[in-house]
Amino acid sequence: MIEFKYDQNGLIPAIVQDHKTGEVLMLAYMNKESLERTIKEKRAWYWSRSRQKFWMKGETSGHVQDVKEAYYDCDADAILIKVEQTGPACHTGNRSCFFRKIEL
Amino acid sequence: MIEFKYDQNGLIPAIVQDHKTGEVLMLAYMNKESLERTIKEKRAWYWSRSRQKFWMKGETSGHVQDVKEAYYDCDADAILIKVEQTGPACHTGNRSCFFRKIEL
Repeated sequence: MIEFKYDQNGLIPAIVQDHKTGEVLMLAYMNKESLERTIKEKRAWYWSRSRQKFWMKGETSGHVQDVKEAYYDCDADAILIKVEQTGPACHTGNRSCFFRKIEL
Repeated sequence: MIEFKYDQNGLIPAIVQDHKTGEVLMLAYMNKESLERTIKEKRAWYWSRSRQKFWMKGETSGHVQDVKEAYYDCDADAILIKVEQTGPACHTGNRSCFFRKIEL
Protein backbone atom coordinates (compact mmCIF):
# COMPACT_ATOMS: atom_id res chain seq x y z
CA MET A 1 0.00 0.00 0.00
CA ILE A 2 1.67 3.21 -1.15
CA GLU A 3 1.17 6.26 1.10
CA PHE A 4 0.76 9.02 -1.44
CA LYS A 5 1.11 12.56 -0.15
CA TYR A 6 -1.76 14.78 -1.13
CA ASP A 7 -1.52 18.57 -0.94
CA GLN A 8 -3.60 20.92 1.22
CA ASN A 9 -6.49 20.50 -1.21
CA GLY A 10 -6.28 16.70 -1.19
CA LEU A 11 -4.71 16.58 -4.63
CA ILE A 12 -1.60 15.09 -6.21
CA PRO A 13 -0.23 16.29 -9.57
CA ALA A 14 0.02 13.76 -12.39
CA ILE A 15 2.37 14.23 -15.30
CA VAL A 16 1.00 12.57 -18.40
CA GLN A 17 3.45 11.29 -20.98
CA ASP A 18 2.89 9.53 -24.30
CA HIS A 19 4.09 5.97 -23.67
CA LYS A 20 5.57 5.59 -27.14
CA THR A 21 7.08 8.97 -28.01
CA GLY A 22 7.85 10.26 -24.51
CA GLU A 23 6.09 13.54 -25.31
CA VAL A 24 4.73 15.26 -22.20
CA LEU A 25 1.04 15.77 -22.91
CA MET A 26 -0.39 17.51 -19.85
CA LEU A 27 -0.28 18.04 -16.13
CA ALA A 28 -3.47 17.30 -14.25
CA TYR A 29 -4.56 16.67 -10.66
CA MET A 30 -5.91 13.58 -9.00
CA ASN A 31 -7.62 13.18 -5.66
CA LYS A 32 -7.51 9.87 -3.81
CA GLU A 33 -10.61 8.56 -5.54
CA SER A 34 -9.40 9.41 -9.06
CA LEU A 35 -5.94 7.96 -8.44
CA GLU A 36 -7.42 4.71 -7.15
CA ARG A 37 -9.80 4.53 -10.06
CA THR A 38 -7.00 5.27 -12.56
CA ILE A 39 -4.93 2.40 -11.15
CA LYS A 40 -7.88 0.01 -11.06
CA GLU A 41 -9.29 0.78 -14.50
CA LYS A 42 -6.01 1.68 -16.27
CA ARG A 43 -7.90 4.68 -17.61
CA ALA A 44 -7.05 8.22 -16.51
CA TRP A 45 -9.40 9.94 -14.04
CA TYR A 46 -8.75 13.38 -12.60
CA TRP A 47 -10.11 16.03 -10.31
CA SER A 48 -11.03 19.23 -12.11
CA ARG A 49 -10.05 22.19 -9.95
CA SER A 50 -12.03 24.66 -12.07
CA ARG A 51 -15.20 22.60 -12.15
CA GLN A 52 -14.66 20.95 -8.73
CA LYS A 53 -15.58 17.71 -10.35
CA PHE A 54 -14.28 14.17 -10.66
CA TRP A 55 -13.93 13.32 -14.34
CA MET A 56 -12.63 10.71 -16.73
CA LYS A 57 -10.38 12.22 -19.37
CA GLY A 58 -12.23 11.91 -22.65
CA GLU A 59 -15.66 11.30 -21.14
CA THR A 60 -17.17 13.95 -23.42
CA SER A 61 -14.46 14.35 -26.10
CA GLY A 62 -13.65 10.67 -26.51
CA HIS A 63 -9.98 11.57 -26.08
CA VAL A 64 -9.35 8.96 -23.44
CA GLN A 65 -6.03 7.95 -21.93
CA ASP A 66 -5.22 4.28 -21.47
CA VAL A 67 -2.58 3.96 -18.79
CA LYS A 68 0.30 1.67 -19.72
CA GLU A 69 2.68 2.41 -16.84
CA ALA A 70 2.58 4.50 -13.69
CA TYR A 71 5.29 5.77 -11.36
CA TYR A 72 5.50 7.91 -8.22
CA ASP A 73 8.35 10.10 -7.14
CA CYS A 74 10.82 10.05 -4.25
CA ASP A 75 8.56 12.19 -2.06
CA ALA A 76 5.40 10.30 -3.09
CA ASP A 77 3.80 13.65 -3.90
CA ALA A 78 3.78 13.45 -7.70
CA ILE A 79 2.67 10.83 -10.21
CA LEU A 80 3.89 10.05 -13.72
CA ILE A 81 1.61 8.09 -16.02
CA LYS A 82 2.55 6.82 -19.44
CA VAL A 83 -0.51 6.61 -21.61
CA GLU A 84 -1.84 5.76 -25.00
CA GLN A 85 -3.61 8.99 -25.92
CA THR A 86 -6.61 8.79 -28.22
CA GLY A 87 -6.82 12.04 -30.20
CA PRO A 88 -5.31 15.26 -28.84
CA ALA A 89 -4.67 15.56 -25.11
CA CYS A 90 -5.37 19.30 -25.07
CA HIS A 91 -8.84 20.85 -25.20
CA THR A 92 -7.41 23.34 -27.75
CA GLY A 93 -6.96 20.50 -30.23
CA ASN A 94 -3.19 20.42 -29.83
CA ARG A 95 -1.58 17.06 -29.23
CA SER A 96 0.06 18.35 -26.04
CA CYS A 97 -1.04 21.12 -23.67
CA PHE A 98 2.57 22.35 -23.74
CA PHE A 99 2.42 23.78 -27.26
CA ARG A 100 3.65 27.29 -26.41
CA LYS A 101 7.33 28.01 -26.15
CA ILE A 102 8.98 30.35 -23.68
CA GLU A 103 11.80 32.28 -25.31
CA LEU A 104 15.04 31.84 -23.41
CA MET B 1 4.99 39.14 -21.55
CA ILE B 2 3.41 35.85 -20.55
CA GLU B 3 0.86 35.99 -17.72
CA PHE B 4 1.67 32.83 -15.81
CA LYS B 5 -0.93 31.65 -13.33
CA TYR B 6 0.50 30.95 -9.92
CA ASP B 7 -1.40 28.91 -7.34
CA GLN B 8 -2.64 30.04 -3.92
CA ASN B 9 0.91 29.76 -2.61
CA GLY B 10 2.40 31.78 -5.47
CA LEU B 11 3.87 28.69 -7.12
CA ILE B 12 3.74 27.06 -10.54
CA PRO B 13 4.70 23.42 -11.10
CA ALA B 14 7.56 22.68 -13.48
CA ILE B 15 7.96 19.32 -15.16
CA VAL B 16 11.61 18.60 -15.86
CA GLN B 17 12.45 16.41 -18.83
CA ASP B 18 15.80 15.23 -20.18
CA HIS B 19 16.17 17.14 -23.46
CA LYS B 20 17.82 14.23 -25.24
CA THR B 21 16.07 11.09 -23.99
CA GLY B 22 12.68 12.57 -23.07
CA GLU B 23 12.86 10.93 -19.64
CA VAL B 24 10.82 12.81 -17.03
CA LEU B 25 13.28 13.58 -14.24
CA MET B 26 11.28 15.43 -11.59
CA LEU B 27 8.45 17.76 -10.75
CA ALA B 28 9.39 20.89 -8.83
CA TYR B 29 7.85 24.26 -8.03
CA MET B 30 8.84 27.74 -9.08
CA ASN B 31 7.75 31.08 -7.72
CA LYS B 32 7.83 34.19 -9.91
CA GLU B 33 11.41 34.99 -8.98
CA SER B 34 12.72 31.49 -9.69
CA LEU B 35 10.87 31.25 -13.00
CA GLU B 36 12.26 34.60 -14.14
CA ARG B 37 15.74 33.62 -13.06
CA THR B 38 15.47 30.23 -14.80
CA ILE B 39 14.51 31.93 -18.06
CA LYS B 40 17.21 34.58 -17.75
CA GLU B 41 20.07 32.29 -16.73
CA LYS B 42 18.95 29.11 -18.57
CA ARG B 43 19.70 27.31 -15.34
CA ALA B 44 16.92 25.79 -13.22
CA TRP B 45 15.91 27.62 -10.02
CA TYR B 46 13.08 26.48 -7.79
CA TRP B 47 11.18 27.25 -4.65
CA SER B 48 11.58 24.59 -1.98
CA ARG B 49 8.25 24.10 -0.23
CA SER B 50 9.80 22.06 2.59
CA ARG B 51 12.63 24.48 3.26
CA GLN B 52 10.67 27.62 2.20
CA LYS B 53 13.71 28.64 0.27
CA PHE B 54 14.67 29.81 -3.19
CA TRP B 55 17.34 27.47 -4.57
CA MET B 56 19.33 26.65 -7.65
CA LYS B 57 19.14 22.97 -8.50
CA GLY B 58 22.62 21.56 -7.91
CA GLU B 59 23.89 24.45 -5.80
CA THR B 60 25.19 22.01 -3.20
CA SER B 61 25.25 18.71 -5.14
CA GLY B 62 26.63 20.10 -8.40
CA HIS B 63 23.77 18.33 -10.20
CA VAL B 64 22.71 21.40 -12.12
CA GLN B 65 20.13 21.62 -14.89
CA ASP B 66 20.91 23.62 -18.01
CA VAL B 67 17.66 24.60 -19.65
CA LYS B 68 17.56 23.95 -23.38
CA GLU B 69 13.87 24.60 -24.08
CA ALA B 70 10.88 25.75 -22.06
CA TYR B 71 7.14 25.56 -22.65
CA TYR B 72 3.96 26.54 -20.82
CA ASP B 73 0.60 24.89 -21.03
CA CYS B 74 -2.82 25.93 -22.35
CA ASP B 75 -3.89 27.29 -18.95
CA ALA B 76 -0.49 28.95 -18.30
CA ASP B 77 -0.44 27.21 -14.92
CA ALA B 78 2.26 24.61 -15.59
CA ILE B 79 5.75 24.72 -17.08
CA LEU B 80 7.76 22.12 -18.97
CA ILE B 81 11.51 22.52 -19.15
CA LYS B 82 13.84 20.37 -21.19
CA VAL B 83 17.22 20.22 -19.57
CA GLU B 84 20.70 18.84 -19.75
CA GLN B 85 20.99 17.16 -16.38
CA THR B 86 24.43 16.89 -14.79
CA GLY B 87 24.49 13.76 -12.60
CA PRO B 88 21.30 12.35 -11.13
CA ALA B 89 18.24 14.58 -10.82
CA CYS B 90 17.03 12.85 -7.65
CA HIS B 91 18.51 13.37 -4.19
CA THR B 92 18.35 9.56 -3.75
CA GLY B 93 20.98 9.17 -6.46
CA ASN B 94 18.50 7.88 -9.02
CA ARG B 95 18.58 9.48 -12.44
CA SER B 96 14.89 10.35 -12.19
CA CYS B 97 12.73 11.00 -9.12
CA PHE B 98 10.11 8.72 -10.69
CA PHE B 99 11.99 5.47 -10.08
CA ARG B 100 9.19 3.63 -8.27
CA LYS B 101 6.52 1.85 -10.23
CA ILE B 102 2.85 1.63 -9.32
CA GLU B 103 1.48 -1.82 -10.08
CA LEU B 104 -1.56 -1.59 -12.35
